[in-house]
Amino acid sequence: MKLTILGNNSALPAYSRHPTAQLLEVNQQFHLIDCGEGTQMQLQLYGLSPFKIRCIYISHLHGDHYFGLVGLLSSLSLLGRTQELDLFGPQELKQIIEIQLVWELGYPLNFHALNFQESISIVEHKAVEVISFPVKHSIPTCGFQFIERKRKRILLPEKVREFEIPKYFYSKLTEGADYIKADGTIIANETLTLPGSVPKKYVYAADTQFLPELKQYFLDADVLYHETTYLQSDTAKAHLRMHATTVEAAEMALNSGVKKLLIGHFSSKYKDLSPFLEEAQTIFANTELALEGTTFDI
Amino acid sequence: MKLTILGNNSALPAYSRHPTAQLLEVNQQFHLIDCGEGTQMQLQLYGLSPFKIRCIYISHLHGDHYFGLVGLLSSLSLLGRTQELDLFGPQELKQIIEIQLVWELGYPLNFHALNFQESISIVEHKAVEVISFPVKHSIPTCGFQFIERKRKRILLPEKVREFEIPKYFYSKLTEGADYIKADGTIIANETLTLPGSVPKKYVYAADTQFLPELKQYFLDADVLYHETTYLQSDTAKAHLRMHATTVEAAEMALNSGVKKLLIGHFSSKYKDLSPFLEEAQTIFANTELALEGTTFDI
Repeated sequence: MKLTILGNNSALPAYSRHPTAQLLEVNQQFHLIDCGEGTQMQLQLYGLSPFKIRCIYISHLHGDHYFGLVGLLSSLSLLGRTQELDLFGPQELKQIIEIQLVWELGYPLNFHALNFQESISIVEHKAVEVISFPVKHSIPTCGFQFIERKRKRILLPEKVREFEIPKYFYSKLTEGADYIKADGTIIANETLTLPGSVPKKYVYAADTQFLPELKQYFLDADVLYHETTYLQSDTAKAHLRMHATTVEAAEMALNSGVKKLLIGHFSSKYKDLSPFLEEAQTIFANTELALEGTTFDI
Repeated sequence: MKLTILGNNSALPAYSRHPTAQLLEVNQQFHLIDCGEGTQMQLQLYGLSPFKIRCIYISHLHGDHYFGLVGLLSSLSLLGRTQELDLFGPQELKQIIEIQLVWELGYPLNFHALNFQESISIVEHKAVEVISFPVKHSIPTCGFQFIERKRKRILLPEKVREFEIPKYFYSKLTEGADYIKADGTIIANETLTLPGSVPKKYVYAADTQFLPELKQYFLDADVLYHETTYLQSDTAKAHLRMHATTVEAAEMALNSGVKKLLIGHFSSKYKDLSPFLEEAQTIFANTELALEGTTFDI
């Protein structure tokens, strides 16, 4: 998976930083996570084709997370898209889009309302599963787990020949099945294959206050994106507005055993972002700023 | 009056050109004409304070003319605006904004529905009058005339002394009144004053097809902005989509006695804009491209 940051600022655009949007590439398809104003221009700027977007996820209905959506959906239609697109968001988003679209879209837009009560699987593609989970913010908000589907096991050619496994059974072997010979002998899968590489996991925690219970969703993520709207000195303000600080995000990463922490959704009150990195790294060393235009390999 | 172009492209953003928005400064207040996606970022880019916006005009409900509006309105509230703001647009715009605003705005937003049947005066400020007029596009659309209020006449000091005009009457003289002496003698205003400079007129013709009847609104404008979505070679396409070409805009300017023609709303199919200028100038020499970031003195 490859993650490109399109926007990393909070409510107000400032210092050439844009409202939230991220693009996750999985198996040559794009998953767009939130879509602040200007997202379609950011895609152009970074040379990312909007045609490759297969799913869009809107975490919540604060404008800095979706005011670029209807423009993007319109443009896709004007550009001639015919391929269907899945859109996940709060129920109210459906009407918000519908009353703004003057023309019918040239492609099927499948709207799926998010569930803010419990964690559920919302996408089960061949290459990736997406699971939404409720976080805690001032309005109903979801985070998302992106988990690669289990990687196929790798055949051992000499073993497959040695045990005379018929070719039609090869795909079952890659999925982990044992082979049973005509005489009832079982050849264990582990004899015939090696494990595939470990599936990767990216977690987008959306806008949320510090909430230790979220650990269950962050556990062992290869990359966790956690918002840090404020520095530690503004903890009171963060709590009031149901946002998180550098220290809180880093503690979540540390306690959840994640491999890398990305931080973003910076308040427009800060011009210089380096204190964000410094504060988070004192607690969780493998932290990076979610800088716009940066692509992270997951 | 000073006009700054914030966006000059048609439906799709392309080649770093943005959807339509223009900022007209009159007497230190801003009038924002249309508000495509990204307008608030364009204001930042050109160092124009959104706090000085007094009125916003949305010509019609195609997204490239208003998808930046709700973001701008939200940001003004987050930035702490308390001063009222007048918004003019199609009736349906009111609901479109209301369902997207999660918080109450921190300032009064006065919504005024446009009239698409006839031309009417919609703003009568001390310094400027704004008149909307219907144009012809695929959905109800208005253009706008911005006309400076009549400039005050200039007192002739030696004449005022010679005829012993009392000081309390000076302001009436600048408004054009004659002076009547105690004995009934009339001193004509023209004896005591010189004409003020001629009020300026800017006309924004919005998205429209070529329509000779619009001449009545363009007449003698100091600057006319007329859309030219297409070059002459794409006239058939322009007519189909109810847009105008370079040649059509230039003919309108020529027939209406305007002093300068600005052209914009360029289709994203064109990367190079120089043919637009060349084509229009063959018919109307004083044509300029409405290039983003350019400010025109009117």
